[in-house]
Amino acid sequence: MELTGAQFIGNTRSKEGTALFDSISPASNQPNGGVSMAEATPSEIDEAVELAEQAFDEYRQIGKDERASLLERIADNIEELGATLINECMAETALPEARLIGERGRTMNQLRLFAQVVRDGNWVDARIDTPIPDRQPLPKPDVRSMAIPLGPIAVFGASNFPLAFSVAGGDTASALAAGCPVVFKAHPAHPRTCELVAGAIVKALSESAMPEGVFSMVHGKSHEVGGQLVTHPKIRAVAFTGSQAGGLALFRQANARKTPIPVFAEMGSTNPVFILPEALKNHSEKLVQGLAGSVNLGVGQFCTNPGLIFTTSHSQTEPFINDLSSAMQSQASGTMLTSGIAAGYRQGTSALAATEGVEAIANSSAAAGDNDVDAHLFRTDVTSYLQSKTIQEEVFGPSTVLIQGGSREEILEAARSLEGQLTATIHGTTKDLESYEDLMGILEQKVGRLIINGYPTGVEVCHSMVHGGPFPATTAPATTSVGTAAIHRFVRPVCYQDFPQRLLPAPLQDDNPWGIYRLVNGELTKASIK
Amino acid sequence: MELTGAQFIGNTRSKEGTALFDSISPASNQPNGGVSMAEATPSEIDEAVELAEQAFDEYRQIGKDERASLLERIADNIEELGATLINECMAETALPEARLIGERGRTMNQLRLFAQVVRDGNWVDARIDTPIPDRQPLPKPDVRSMAIPLGPIAVFGASNFPLAFSVAGGDTASALAAGCPVVFKAHPAHPRTCELVAGAIVKALSESAMPEGVFSMVHGKSHEVGGQLVTHPKIRAVAFTGSQAGGLALFRQANARKTPIPVFAEMGSTNPVFILPEALKNHSEKLVQGLAGSVNLGVGQFCTNPGLIFTTSHSQTEPFINDLSSAMQSQASGTMLTSGIAAGYRQGTSALAATEGVEAIANSSAAAGDNDVDAHLFRTDVTSYLQSKTIQEEVFGPSTVLIQGGSREEILEAARSLEGQLTATIHGTTKDLESYEDLMGILEQKVGRLIINGYPTGVEVCHSMVHGGPFPATTAPATTSVGTAAIHRFVRPVCYQDFPQRLLPAPLQDDNPWGIYRLVNGELTKASIK
Repeated sequence: MELTGAQFIGNTRSKEGTALFDSISPASNQPNGGVSMAEATPSEIDEAVELAEQAFDEYRQIGKDERASLLERIADNIEELGATLINECMAETALPEARLIGERGRTMNQLRLFAQVVRDGNWVDARIDTPIPDRQPLPKPDVRSMAIPLGPIAVFGASNFPLAFSVAGGDTASALAAGCPVVFKAHPAHPRTCELVAGAIVKALSESAMPEGVFSMVHGKSHEVGGQLVTHPKIRAVAFTGSQAGGLALFRQANARKTPIPVFAEMGSTNPVFILPEALKNHSEKLVQGLAGSVNLGVGQFCTNPGLIFTTSHSQTEPFINDLSSAMQSQASGTMLTSGIAAGYRQGTSALAATEGVEAIANSSAAAGDNDVDAHLFRTDVTSYLQSKTIQEEVFGPSTVLIQGGSREEILEAARSLEGQLTATIHGTTKDLESYEDLMGILEQKVGRLIINGYPTGVEVCHSMVHGGPFPATTAPATTSVGTAAIHRFVRPVCYQDFPQRLLPAPLQDDNPWGIYRLVNGELTKASIK
Repeated sequence: MELTGAQFIGNTRSKEGTALFDSISPASNQPNGGVSMAEATPSEIDEAVELAEQAFDEYRQIGKDERASLLERIADNIEELGATLINECMAETALPEARLIGERGRTMNQLRLFAQVVRDGNWVDARIDTPIPDRQPLPKPDVRSMAIPLGPIAVFGASNFPLAFSVAGGDTASALAAGCPVVFKAHPAHPRTCELVAGAIVKALSESAMPEGVFSMVHGKSHEVGGQLVTHPKIRAVAFTGSQAGGLALFRQANARKTPIPVFAEMGSTNPVFILPEALKNHSEKLVQGLAGSVNLGVGQFCTNPGLIFTTSHSQTEPFINDLSSAMQSQASGTMLTSGIAAGYRQGTSALAATEGVEAIANSSAAAGDNDVDAHLFRTDVTSYLQSKTIQEEVFGPSTVLIQGGSREEILEAARSLEGQLTATIHGTTKDLESYEDLMGILEQKVGRLIINGYPTGVEVCHSMVHGGPFPATTAPATTSVGTAAIHRFVRPVCYQDFPQRLLPAPLQDDNPWGIYRLVNGELTKASIK
């Protein structure tokens, strides 16, 4: 497929816009490829959403096996892009080949996992209450309900996962799985990667004879393109992964609409790690390696990057800190995804270094390229932490703040003061965990995922994953953007009262043609209704 | 229990406020009882929320059987209030005794149904993905998730269901079932009823040795009391049933908070009824009786009251309209819940009568008391309907607009133009339904509940009920406020990664101590993990 910088408006490539921008290599700050991307115009965006709306009614009604096969075909088509995709993506993101091959695998697995979920069918949460025509004083009607898709979804990908949280990432996969068309806003940090993957999706739709408009993709670097998508009356929900500023802007726009719509924005967090005394004493070396690895993975560019490390007052703290300093010091500098992200990181680490009570204790080898950055380790105490917004806020990149020497009560207070987080992690021996059980109770109320003796980076794509959490980690704490439960964001329940069999959706018909579990009069069963 | 007009702040009755208001009898416009209610003061409201927050951690961790027993005890205590409750409620609402006895039964059944749900335990949506320690390139962790309660909930009851959507109604029952403390904002239209029921709840909490603060209730007629509740930083979600203006005001306040919180507002709708040609011809008499009954039930004061009736062009339309006019004409006038509601109804029906293309064709016997109103039947055509916001909007009370003579295409266009609705109803023979299958597809996208050959009033409390729907029927289309799925509004999923067995919540432990269905590696099963 030729990269043209044009939009995918249904089956048409369109490049009406005159405002252009380039794909930039973060390694060289030079443009990638010979062609500029065009900002989508208002009429292109409108056309994409209108096509999505037109496609919706047909798409939502196609059989579940066809919908599952579509997802699998998208995965196959992405695989077929082979080294072209990986090379373009490396050029645009400076992420290493092995990482991107791994991420591509995750992206395909995710699509295939949603295909399984769709084929399985249980996700529709079918419920049936059978009638009692002679109930007194009033007959009990026949009442049945299940989840149905919302309609066209606007999806905004993340810069830091150019495959797994981008064009064919978890948001698109779960929306398509739910039966919703998608209009994707391409990320300006990797627009060429976006085009390749969009091509794979559109090809899969065409090979599967799906209606035009089930997927479109628009380019844009300005806020206007995203704003127009979110405020389009026919967009029914928004999925976003990125910064707090970006997520909140979309959330505000969506709420100010004549008809407000849900925004599922995952906006990152500081992912605090608590190291309890015995763990520090017994597993210091393992912890140092694990933490330095987790902080620096992908040049620290993960939503789940551990940005705060709390330790208790303990005689082994100084040796631990010395070892962690050395480990951080010895990290190679890395190239960040964009010059904007690198600038933000430098600003964040400078602000930390200038904060009262914060000491910069390690700084890896001086960075070379324009967008190369060093790893940073800071230390402070709980009192300073509690007083400073700067310390409490996320710095996106390979930086972490060690908050040392907290008493048990200070540690609990620090935990209580946390804003909503994607994750929190506790390192502790059995004895540690027993004596800090209340810490777990506090953290449970603050996060989407609690990890014991592990690291927050590495989000397993499975049925029980929760990649979410209370505000401001997300705008929708009851949901997850990773794992199969992500499909529930794009549906709502509808109830069918006294419907003739023939008119009921298949999952609710008496003879259970889908063979799924249904809640029949309060009991989960696969049995038919007699 | 003595009625004092005081707040219930945990276990304390408090009447600090100096702004007073009375319970007013809608039949006489005179005060009920000898005591005025005090508007809750800011410090009382703050104290109620603080107590709720303090109670939360203990309350959320009590055993499921204890929580279920609490709900049953609340039902028992309401029953024990006997005729006192019914009489006070009749005086405050002008609703007839039989209706209120029925509504009390529904309220108790609802509490008992949620007790069953809590005991059953499946509602927590337990999910387990078992580890693969030797997976390449990375080990698969042990990941488990389940729903946990959000924290203190602010609940606003409705005027039109002084028992079933009020102090111990579905919102309170589902929040308590989920493990959330409740701060209830008493409805100023039935504050004495509220006090009686609040007393029954507080007594049940004390008899069950629950922590203080699981339930509080504050009085208020001003917007300040509600506003302070919704903006209190420790309130985690809001449930509301009432007007669109009220619900939207709370929704805007909740979204403007530093930490936005979800608002589950059910704001009513017009509940369109579509009468297809053969049904009109074959079942005219039954339809006339059914519609007149549904429109006038409870003086038309239901969220699900059918406010729009669409008929197709058919030779039998005139006789049908004549019969429906007679049936509406012969309705006795009824006393509305408050003078404000009566004034709103008169204003709404006057506006309809003055609307271009609308003809007032029936008006029941002239009302006698100040707050007594007549039933109204209007007629118009699809063209006028599509052009007029006045016709499209809900008039709360025993009024309905018949939109006659639509062609098939006009009927579909009218359906497409609908805003979000709680319900839509279709009357049709088998043949009608076949030839209007596309109508169902359109309405499915507009409503929470679709009814065939029935009436929207009468919302069955069961597992599959959806009392909700797209905006503006509600602010949270993915939820229901009636039926057992209402519990899911007050929880969010939390994921536990690599937790030792002992520290896992019971529903996620290997041996499945709750004996519930769990999604284990994608399969629903009650089996233990080996």
